[in-house]
Amino acid sequence: MGMLQLQGSIPLHQSKGATMNAALYYLYLAFFISHIPITLFVDSQAVLPAAWYPQAARDLSSWYFTTHKDPLMMHCPTWFQSLVGSELVLQLPFFFVAIYALLAKRNWLRIPAILYGSFVSATMLPILAELITHTAHGYNAAVVTAFYAPYLIVPLLLALHMAATPQPFGSSKAKRQ
Amino acid sequence: MGMLQLQGSIPLHQSKGATMNAALYYLYLAFFISHIPITLFVDSQAVLPAAWYPQAARDLSSWYFTTHKDPLMMHCPTWFQSLVGSELVLQLPFFFVAIYALLAKRNWLRIPAILYGSFVSATMLPILAELITHTAHGYNAAVVTAFYAPYLIVPLLLALHMAATPQPFGSSKAKRQ
Repeated sequence: MGMLQLQGSIPLHQSKGATMNAALYYLYLAFFISHIPITLFVDSQAVLPAAWYPQAARDLSSWYFTTHKDPLMMHCPTWFQSLVGSELVLQLPFFFVAIYALLAKRNWLRIPAILYGSFVSATMLPILAELITHTAHGYNAAVVTAFYAPYLIVPLLLALHMAATPQPFGSSKAKRQ
Repeated sequence: MGMLQLQGSIPLHQSKGATMNAALYYLYLAFFISHIPITLFVDSQAVLPAAWYPQAARDLSSWYFTTHKDPLMMHCPTWFQSLVGSELVLQLPFFFVAIYALLAKRNWLRIPAILYGSFVSATMLPILAELITHTAHGYNAAVVTAFYAPYLIVPLLLALHMAATPQPFGSSKAKRQ
């Protein structure tokens, strides 16, 4: 797993050279793996009772509010709660599906990944619009927007990449989907 | 074009019986055709100067505000404006593409339709969450939500239908996509 292979592409057993770019492959994998604890311990605090969380997760949120004054996580408007709710109910189960499909190199990941990526890109629009235009003492729009930006960039990239790639892990007559 | 055909399915010249359900076909077509004037003359008033609109469009909006007290179209919060902006910039061009692909029965509609349908479903979540929970004198959440509901239902149906249908207009070796 050296840098040479990371900069190359993911080989497949039965394909005729068709592969997925290795940098994107590991980007997607890291994104979905890291997203599980972030959704469970951080984001979901916007919609679930504080008592459900370990003290460390509540402390992290408190530190984040005090330091960065994120207006959405602090005030949790209804529209924002609906998006976090969809993260918990729709996105979270998909993270496990996506991790499995990436590790097992399943071409059927394509359509669910397009649905997921396009959905999440849309949810990030109103969030980023509010964060970019928000002004308050001690609030730095660039910093807070930068925290959220990967959650637009990676899903959008995934959706467009999968849309443009009919068989993300290469074709194989021998290997049935 | 009698009712019998409407209740059946759309035949294709070179297919071996593979077809799209006719009711869904005409639903999608009517949806996209009707969405063009709605976006241009009604929805976009949330983000563009009133002076750009014909008097009839402004009168329709005024009547709608006075009668139904839609809090989003009346107050146009930033997050809502970002969604209407995406309707104008991303969705509106797609309506023409979708109408062409439906009329010409192009299987390549599938992936753009999944991207579109999933994106729009996500944009409707925060909108419906606010409309359902909003309370004000003279505001009827059920009525206003019902106005918006088709813009969740049809795109969501389209996304799921296309996701489940690899070749929406049937397969044809003779007809290259």
